[in-house]
Amino acid sequence: MSSAENSFAIGIDVGGTAIKAGVVSSAGDILHKESTPTEATAGVEHVVDRIVETARRMEAAAGNVRACSDAIGVAVAGNIDRGNGVVVASPNLNGWHGVPLVLRLSAILDRPVVLENDANCAAVGEFRRGAGRGVDNMVLLTLGTGIGSGIILDRTLWRGASDDAGELGHTIVSVGGRRCVCGQQGCLEVYASGKNTARRAIELIAGGETSSLAARCTTDDDLTTEQIVRAAADGDRVAGRVWEETCRYLAAACINIQHTLNPDRIVLGGGMSAARGLLREPVVRAVRTMISPQFGKPPDIGIAELGNDAGFVGAALNALQNE
Amino acid sequence: MSSAENSFAIGIDVGGTAIKAGVVSSAGDILHKESTPTEATAGVEHVVDRIVETARRMEAAAGNVRACSDAIGVAVAGNIDRGNGVVVASPNLNGWHGVPLVLRLSAILDRPVVLENDANCAAVGEFRRGAGRGVDNMVLLTLGTGIGSGIILDRTLWRGASDDAGELGHTIVSVGGRRCVCGQQGCLEVYASGKNTARRAIELIAGGETSSLAARCTTDDDLTTEQIVRAAADGDRVAGRVWEETCRYLAAACINIQHTLNPDRIVLGGGMSAARGLLREPVVRAVRTMISPQFGKPPDIGIAELGNDAGFVGAALNALQNE
Repeated sequence: MSSAENSFAIGIDVGGTAIKAGVVSSAGDILHKESTPTEATAGVEHVVDRIVETARRMEAAAGNVRACSDAIGVAVAGNIDRGNGVVVASPNLNGWHGVPLVLRLSAILDRPVVLENDANCAAVGEFRRGAGRGVDNMVLLTLGTGIGSGIILDRTLWRGASDDAGELGHTIVSVGGRRCVCGQQGCLEVYASGKNTARRAIELIAGGETSSLAARCTTDDDLTTEQIVRAAADGDRVAGRVWEETCRYLAAACINIQHTLNPDRIVLGGGMSAARGLLREPVVRAVRTMISPQFGKPPDIGIAELGNDAGFVGAALNALQNE
Repeated sequence: MSSAENSFAIGIDVGGTAIKAGVVSSAGDILHKESTPTEATAGVEHVVDRIVETARRMEAAAGNVRACSDAIGVAVAGNIDRGNGVVVASPNLNGWHGVPLVLRLSAILDRPVVLENDANCAAVGEFRRGAGRGVDNMVLLTLGTGIGSGIILDRTLWRGASDDAGELGHTIVSVGGRRCVCGQQGCLEVYASGKNTARRAIELIAGGETSSLAARCTTDDDLTTEQIVRAAADGDRVAGRVWEETCRYLAAACINIQHTLNPDRIVLGGGMSAARGLLREPVVRAVRTMISPQFGKPPDIGIAELGNDAGFVGAALNALQNE
């Protein structure tokens, strides 16, 4: 069937914690959805099995849906070789190096599989059905353990010359700065991700600062962005300082996006965007303080609307477009 | 006449020091060119007169050229309101604030005038006829007193939602860093432009460092990038350190371009690119040291080929496209 005839597709978003999936219409409406643990620590084969099981349940759910695309869209966090359908490396999936996921899944499922980076899928989802509705150009930052991004230009996902575009978490905002897990120094992610926001709070507390968070943290895995944001809102000064600094780095990222691409809208998504106004407002405030007025009006900054659904919605829409 | 029928146009590049102009074919060949001092200190009216005189000479030179476009392309450094044909502000042209240049020129010359930012024009010129030949996606950095840029995506100039894209000189590479003339802190330009490279050398010398450059500099206007590069090549340690730092910041800019847009090629242009290999090689070396290999292969970095011609060549090609 051609794209024009199909109005539905299955999208599956394979994250480090959960596999989220749904049957999605070409307008981005969700007919059915589910979330199931990834169980990534059990290894590659186990996760592939769980993706297949998820796909089977989605097929059953889509069974009475007319005009459902044969193609299934799959989103995976990490470096994707789209041409060969291979997950080159994924920071959140144990042991995933050079996994020929498209070949594996399409052989088992007997369907075409369209693989794409998860932040790119989330950007497509938000653009078509979420915070990017009504604009032509949008950049999504996915703020979580790490920082990903997806760039929509002229209503189309911008992938770059060799599919390496949209790694905004690893743009350098402090030359010679802190070492990032990627090996570079001074990446946006090493200052403003959830994990690194927690790390900065823990460093201050370990250095002797008094904070209501002190009891919670012995390692940076103990402290969530949500706890920091809540403590900051409750007047904890360490939490307030740390959160303000995170928002200042995110503001620098927004300024850089504006000066580079000047999109219609920048959308803050990922787990950290659950803080909504407590994230957006300090970032917008910092942008207004930091940006030079000589370069036109400051960027329009919004909060993602689809939450955990963005990835599979985008993966499904991507499959409809690529079938 | 339609674009398909016209094969030549006049392009004029109005810089702070010189007005460069030429008659250019649709293939980017230069039939005739000239350069004349801008005399910007004499004020707006004087510069407008000099642009008109230049245009008249170009019309004469193009007089026996068949199929020359009516439209004249004009490039100006600074913030351009293309919709209204206004130079909003120009850092290098005294007193240019809200100058309705298109209205003024088209009334006098009785021709359509197509106004565009100079770095955007230079990017079009390099893309079509210089260091960007043969690729689809290219980013040009114009390295001079300040730092400008032009972005070509899918063979087309990317201007952004409100013509504010491509201000890479004012992307932030050091959050909370040095104050830039634009008002922001930590801009690429405040570390890596010609003026700021000289300033850093002067600061080191003023701080007591021994350098062969010491005799030359009392203010930062005395010291050129060329002198610093030559002194560095001759083994002057202060010059070497300053130049290496400039190249490190430019490498960060290239890494950020790669991680954001992943173009086929990044081109280093502007006055500083006269250093050619002495610019390109340390930048390429620094990129290889600083970039993480997990994001695919490092960017292809080249040196601009058209020198001072890029701006008027691009302005003319832009006029041909927009007539």
